Amino acid sequence: MIEVVVWNEYRHERLEEAVRNIYPDGIHGCIKSFLDVDEELNVTLASLDDECQGLPDELLNKTDVLLWWGHIAHHEVSDELVEKIRQRVYAGKMGLIVLHSGHHSKVFKSVVGTTGNLSWGRDQKEVVWNLYPTHPIAKGIPEHFIIDIEELYCEPFYIPQPDAVVFGSWYEDGFIFRSGVCFERGLGKVFYFQPGHEYCRSFYNEYVQKIITNAVHWAVPTEVGYSVPDGAPMVNFKVTDEFNS
Amino acid sequence: MIEVVVWNEYRHERLEEAVRNIYPDGIHGCIKSFLDVDEELNVTLASLDDECQGLPDELLNKTDVLLWWGHIAHHEVSDELVEKIRQRVYAGKMGLIVLHSGHHSKVFKSVVGTTGNLSWGRDQKEVVWNLYPTHPIAKGIPEHFIIDIEELYCEPFYIPQPDAVVFGSWYEDGFIFRSGVCFERGLGKVFYFQPGHEYCRSFYNEYVQKIITNAVHWAVPTEVGYSVPDGAPMVNFKVTDEFNS
Amino acid sequence: MIEVVVWNEYRHERLEEAVRNIYPDGIHGCIKSFLDVDEELNVTLASLDDECQGLPDELLNKTDVLLWWGHIAHHEVSDELVEKIRQRVYAGKMGLIVLHSGHHSKVFKSVVGTTGNLSWGRDQKEVVWNLYPTHPIAKGIPEHFIIDIEELYCEPFYIPQPDAVVFGSWYEDGFIFRSGVCFERGLGKVFYFQPGHEYCRSFYNEYVQKIITNAVHWAVPTEVGYSVPDGAPMVNFKVTDEFNS
Amino acid sequence: MIEVVVWNEYRHERLEEAVRNIYPDGIHGCIKSFLDVDEELNVTLASLDDECQGLPDELLNKTDVLLWWGHIAHHEVSDELVEKIRQRVYAGKMGLIVLHSGHHSKVFKSVVGTTGNLSWGRDQKEVVWNLYPTHPIAKGIPEHFIIDIEELYCEPFYIPQPDAVVFGSWYEDGFIFRSGVCFERGLGKVFYFQPGHEYCRSFYNEYVQKIITNAVHWAVPTEVGYSVPDGAPMVNFKVTDEFNS
Repeated sequence: MIEVVVWNEYRHERLEEAVRNIYPDGIHGCIKSFLDVDEELNVTLASLDDECQGLPDELLNKTDVLLWWGHIAHHEVSDELVEKIRQRVYAGKMGLIVLHSGHHSKVFKSVVGTTGNLSWGRDQKEVVWNLYPTHPIAKGIPEHFIIDIEELYCEPFYIPQPDAVVFGSWYEDGFIFRSGVCFERGLGKVFYFQPGHEYCRSFYNEYVQKIITNAVHWAVPTEVGYSVPDGAPMVNFKVTDEFNS
Repeated sequence: MIEVVVWNEYRHERLEEAVRNIYPDGIHGCIKSFLDVDEELNVTLASLDDECQGLPDELLNKTDVLLWWGHIAHHEVSDELVEKIRQRVYAGKMGLIVLHSGHHSKVFKSVVGTTGNLSWGRDQKEVVWNLYPTHPIAKGIPEHFIIDIEELYCEPFYIPQPDAVVFGSWYEDGFIFRSGVCFERGLGKVFYFQPGHEYCRSFYNEYVQKIITNAVHWAVPTEVGYSVPDGAPMVNFKVTDEFNS
Repeated sequence: MIEVVVWNEYRHERLEEAVRNIYPDGIHGCIKSFLDVDEELNVTLASLDDECQGLPDELLNKTDVLLWWGHIAHHEVSDELVEKIRQRVYAGKMGLIVLHSGHHSKVFKSVVGTTGNLSWGRDQKEVVWNLYPTHPIAKGIPEHFIIDIEELYCEPFYIPQPDAVVFGSWYEDGFIFRSGVCFERGLGKVFYFQPGHEYCRSFYNEYVQKIITNAVHWAVPTEVGYSVPDGAPMVNFKVTDEFNS
Repeated sequence: MIEVVVWNEYRHERLEEAVRNIYPDGIHGCIKSFLDVDEELNVTLASLDDECQGLPDELLNKTDVLLWWGHIAHHEVSDELVEKIRQRVYAGKMGLIVLHSGHHSKVFKSVVGTTGNLSWGRDQKEVVWNLYPTHPIAKGIPEHFIIDIEELYCEPFYIPQPDAVVFGSWYEDGFIFRSGVCFERGLGKVFYFQPGHEYCRSFYNEYVQKIITNAVHWAVPTEVGYSVPDGAPMVNFKVTDEFNS
């Protein structure tokens, strides 16, 4: 079983009826509902106002893949929790999937090393293009698909050169965006995906669901063929001493 | 079943007793023997002096992964066969694994787009370092392993910036080499691996065997979520016409 | 002085009045006229129907940067010339800039290692976005600029992962394209740029002109700090012998 | 003039006579002395025990390139200063060059997004190989050069896939290391270079000096062709409204 935690700030849904009408169980509830179809995944919900901001050590320390959605309360997330997540990703114990407005979360900025800056605008039509059809996250995704209405995010997106640009998006008003990008950090994997505005129904889109499901599988930590040191250990041997030993 | 073809020039083994003593069934025979242990692989042998230079269309057109070892007869391989291999890799129908002196094969130079130039020297001790422990090709490989005697290949290696440098090697005389490198070309994957001189026993090394086996699995073509066009088709639709359709 | 050759197939302009009206001196003549403003550049014209297909050895062998525009006569370009260009780029003696329909030229496909496949469609509005504002080719280019009418080129573009994606384009009908991409091959640099259909006036656009001028400077061969070998020379020394020498 | 600040922890030199004998003016003093030969550079010294930890705002805010050497006092550097440096690099106002044991500095770990972990060992002979001879940082550097005695740093080096691996090193005891690596973060550039142990004379090596000088020029901020926003501004226009305007 792959242990998945869907972390959601979970404020908009409680404060605004329009959002609650779209996601009555919260954005995280909606994400869990389609991930639950995959029998290899064991999905747990977590949110900012839960105890320990949703991620007590006993949960975090068994999480294989963490999904993150946040927006208006990024600043409330504790630096200590962010640092724990960062270390866990770098140590190759957990993958990270950051959704939509999570580009400005402390977690994304700290793990990837970026401001996460971009420009944004009115909700409009988006066409998502599959730029890397052989990438595991693009499995089963057509050349393009349409999201009827989604918040505009546009370039320049101030991120490091990604290790892979899997999706790129076209927007009605003349903008484009690298909407699905991968980063490797330490021994861990990070995927950022643009759709998912709280006022839009993107998480009900079949391809958005498939991409996020694919990304969970891609982000699962990889077993490493030796014991990874913590810190910078001194090497107390010479490889040359092993010759013909 | 994954259809694997191990192509070997197969001249040294027939011309030189010293080589034949090491690889009595040919280098390709040795490679087949350890790949055969993997029940997902169906391994076929092919060599330069076979009919159609070992790769008649009916074989090539069902090959999922092609391994290539050549050295003294690169120039004898027909341009037509090279072009068929190139197109099959680009079309995402076949992965390619190029071994040792194959760096100067027409196949490697043409598929990757390179001269394949490097420098080389006397046989000596090599230490292979695992530079990308989370890469699928490094699965189960320790931090480093020793090859008691292998031909020196050294930098500068005139290749395009690889999509991944999985292994790097240290040599006794003071040289280093990017010894395991990945390239993506078209929809296909290519892995080049340095060990495998005809006078050395590297293909009996357990880690060399594991790396090549891992590489076969990595290079298997990926299913693409739409029908890939051949050539440059005209687009006879507007995506914008699909809106709300 | 940087020796620049602008190679143009130069057929459309002679065959079709509509094209000739836009580019009375040929597409290459137009490109030369804006490059000539740069006093560091010495620009020579070449075309397919010139002697030696425009690139006699004495010209090719002094060219620092070659620009290439072709379309309906790709197949007429001799394989021998293509191979000379390829070797010159790989040897780091010449940079290469491929324009528009040159994506399907033998030169582009052979040097980069690709089919160059893409899809295309009707002429329409294009918005070029600056995705890598600190790249030398993006110097002085705004966040975006508009090309009123240009031929649609669209993803998927079957190229290897580029070493840099400098520009991405939005098209009116719902498509996007990686419209300005860099590749390093051997010791040489290659830039592909999408605008430049023979029926459109893109080469008169100030930003298109600036990008091409920037690309010429970027593609100038870099001096290497040692003598680059041709082929794969044997190393007849041990670095370890140099210790404390 | 390029404004360069050489920041040095400057503790070893004051505490240990052996180090002081090698670098009587401090490591930073030695670096300044060879950078001063370059007339385009205006070099200022800074150290941890200076006021504001050496980087008062009025100095930091005019710095084009910051060099960083630290070791035993990484933890003393204030988080606030680290954050200022990080923001300045991301904003493309300053390049960063991190030397030797700076791999574990807060600055490197935070700007790049990494643990900076590696293994290390006894001082020994190092051969630095030029893996990217056309890179601006490799200008004038031979295929390889020898450092008679330097501290062993070895793989695995837990860094994100670098944007360029310019140098790789061989060590006497059987180890290798990616010893010169580039990262782009935001609009800024970062170079990490391995030589520079406080007990070794590497900063007197002519090629080490040339590499660091080259890196300073490479890291100078690039002018961007538009006004870069701070934060994530709303886009209050449609590009499509600009058509034919």
